[in-house]
Amino acid sequence: MDIMRPYLLFLGDVPDSLAAKTALGIVDWRPEWCLGQLRLPGCKADAGIPDMSVAEARAAGVRTMIVGAVNAGGVLPDHWVASIVEAINAGFDIASGLHSRLSDNPSIRAAAEHKGVHLHDVRHSHERFATGKGTKRPGLRLLTVGTDCSVGKKYTTLALERGMRAAGFDADFRATGQTGVFISGRGVAIDAVVADFISGAVEWLSPAAAPGHWDLIEGQGSLFHPSFAGVSLGLLHGAQPDAFVVCHEPTRTKMRGVAHPLPSIQEVIDLTIACGRLTNPAIACVGIAINTSALSDAEASALLASTTETFGLPTVDPIRSGVGPIVDHIAVIFPPTTDA
Amino acid sequence: MDIMRPYLLFLGDVPDSLAAKTALGIVDWRPEWCLGQLRLPGCKADAGIPDMSVAEARAAGVRTMIVGAVNAGGVLPDHWVASIVEAINAGFDIASGLHSRLSDNPSIRAAAEHKGVHLHDVRHSHERFATGKGTKRPGLRLLTVGTDCSVGKKYTTLALERGMRAAGFDADFRATGQTGVFISGRGVAIDAVVADFISGAVEWLSPAAAPGHWDLIEGQGSLFHPSFAGVSLGLLHGAQPDAFVVCHEPTRTKMRGVAHPLPSIQEVIDLTIACGRLTNPAIACVGIAINTSALSDAEASALLASTTETFGLPTVDPIRSGVGPIVDHIAVIFPPTTDA
Repeated sequence: MDIMRPYLLFLGDVPDSLAAKTALGIVDWRPEWCLGQLRLPGCKADAGIPDMSVAEARAAGVRTMIVGAVNAGGVLPDHWVASIVEAINAGFDIASGLHSRLSDNPSIRAAAEHKGVHLHDVRHSHERFATGKGTKRPGLRLLTVGTDCSVGKKYTTLALERGMRAAGFDADFRATGQTGVFISGRGVAIDAVVADFISGAVEWLSPAAAPGHWDLIEGQGSLFHPSFAGVSLGLLHGAQPDAFVVCHEPTRTKMRGVAHPLPSIQEVIDLTIACGRLTNPAIACVGIAINTSALSDAEASALLASTTETFGLPTVDPIRSGVGPIVDHIAVIFPPTTDA
Repeated sequence: MDIMRPYLLFLGDVPDSLAAKTALGIVDWRPEWCLGQLRLPGCKADAGIPDMSVAEARAAGVRTMIVGAVNAGGVLPDHWVASIVEAINAGFDIASGLHSRLSDNPSIRAAAEHKGVHLHDVRHSHERFATGKGTKRPGLRLLTVGTDCSVGKKYTTLALERGMRAAGFDADFRATGQTGVFISGRGVAIDAVVADFISGAVEWLSPAAAPGHWDLIEGQGSLFHPSFAGVSLGLLHGAQPDAFVVCHEPTRTKMRGVAHPLPSIQEVIDLTIACGRLTNPAIACVGIAINTSALSDAEASALLASTTETFGLPTVDPIRSGVGPIVDHIAVIFPPTTDA
C-alpha cells in the first residue's frame, strides 16, 4: 500500500453523509492531505473542503483521487465511471474502498493501462492469511465495539491513539476498514476477507508485541447487526482484547440498513464479554463512547453523566469532549510501563 | 455447477480420516457415484472403495476426479499436482473444495486448457450476493450447530432430510460446505464467501418458501471455535432457524486445530438462542446428535439416554441409530401440513 498524496475526494451523488463516511473520516484525521472534493449533481454529502473539477485538482497538485463514498453493497455505480476515467486521464492514481474492483470495469482498466496510473483496491488484500489460532499473544489490545454500524468506532479508536500517546502509552491504531487504511496507510479491510480467515487476518494485523504495547483495533459492525455480526465476532476473537469500549448513537431507532432496533449498551457489554472470553478470559469494558451530535449541549452532558452513573464506567463523546476520562481509567487499570 | 459422474476420489496423503471428510461424505451419501479412490504413499485415510490408478479409473469409466481431502488452510500441496495433471491428461474433469483455485496452478491450468476439461472450484462461487437483511421470510428452517467443527453436522442434516421426507415433510437439504455441494449438486461453500456477505449468502441459499416447507441447512464450525465462529454466527443469522440441532463428539478434548477445550452442549444451546433470536425470536433447540463412534454400544446407549434425560430433548446418534426421535419431536411441534 503506497497511496500518493495529496488527495482529491470523490463523493459521487450519495444520499447522506453516512454514505460518504470514508471521505469525511480522511478529512477529519488527515486534513493536510485533502485538497478538494468532487461531487456529482444531487450529492447530499459535504466534506467541508473546496469543490474542485478534475482540471482544478490537477492544477492544485492532486496525485490520487479517493473514491470516498460507498453504497450498501459496495458496488461501483455505472454513472460514477466517467468521473473516474476523467481523473485517470488527468494522470491521477485512483484508490477505492468499494467491494467491486476498479480493474473489473473495462473502461477504468483500459484508461489506467493507457495512462500508466495505479488502481488501489483497498478492500482487496493480496496478503494470504492463516486461519485464526486463538492463542493468547503478548502485548495489550483494545477493541471498539458498537450497538450498530457507523456509530463512531473508528473515530473513537483514533482519538484513543492520540490521547493514550499523549498520556505516555506506547499505542498504535490498527485499521480494519477502508477509511482507517486510508488514514493510517496500512491495515486490512476485514469485511472483505474470505470468511474462513476473519480472525486469522486480525491475528496477522495485530501480532505479538512488547508486554506494555497497546494495539488499538478499529471495530466493525455489531454483534447484533443481522448483516455483519459474523465479521464482528471474528474480529473480536482475533483481537482477543484486554479492554473494549462500546460505541453508541443514542437517537438512532433502527440498525443501519435493516429493520432491527438497536440493542442496549448493557446487551452489547454482556455479549461481548460472553463471546470475547473465548480468546481472552480477562476481557473487560473500560468505557463508553456516545456520538451526541444530534443532542444539545445540555442533553449531551446529562446523557454522559447518567450513563457514567448507570454503568460505573467513563462515558465520553470523543468529538464533543474527547476521550480523556477513558484514557485516565485505562491508566489506572493498566499503568503505562517504561519498558514497553 | 454441473459435475460429471462417476467420480474418482483423490485422497492425497492426508494424515487422518477427518482431513478426507469430503471424500468420506460423498461415499456415505452417493456410493453409486464413486468408483474408486486414488491415494498417495503415506495416506492415512480410506474411503472404503477400491484403490485405482488413473489408468484403471479411466478404464472403469470415471468422468471426474474429486479432490476429496483438505488441509487446514485449504491450500493445494505441490506434491499433489502431478496426480491431478495425470488425471487431466486422462480426460477427467477435476472438482476441488480447496480454498486455492485449481486454475491458479500453472501446470494444472495448462493441462486443462490443452485437454479441454473442466476445473470446478466449489469454494469459489460466481454468484454475487447482497448483504443480509435479517427480515423473517416464509417457510420453516432447521440449522445444525456444533460444539466444534467436524462433529457430524452435514451427516445429521442429510439424515434429517431422509427421515423427514419419509415422515411426510416437504424438506430440502441446503449445502453450505464443499462436501454438501458435491453430494447435493448445489449450494454455497459459505466459509469461502467474502465476510460482509455471509448472512446474505445464506438468505440467497434458503429463500422465501411455502409455509410448510423445511429447508434443512448444513451448519459450519461452532460459535465457540476461535478460528471460525464468525462464519457460524453469520450462518445462524442468515438461516434464521425455527429449529436447531446441536451436534457433538463426546471424546474430543480440544477443538479441531486449536488448543481450546470444547464448550458444553448447554453453552451451545444458550449462545445459539441468545444470538439466533436476533433474526428469529421463536428459535428453539429440537434435538441433540452425538457422534458415538468412539464408544461401545453400552456406553453409547447410556450417553444418549442420560443426555435425553438432562436436556429433555431427543438425543440420537444419526449413524448408529438414526434420527427418528428428532423427526418425531419435530412432527409434534411442527405438524406436517398437506398444503406445503
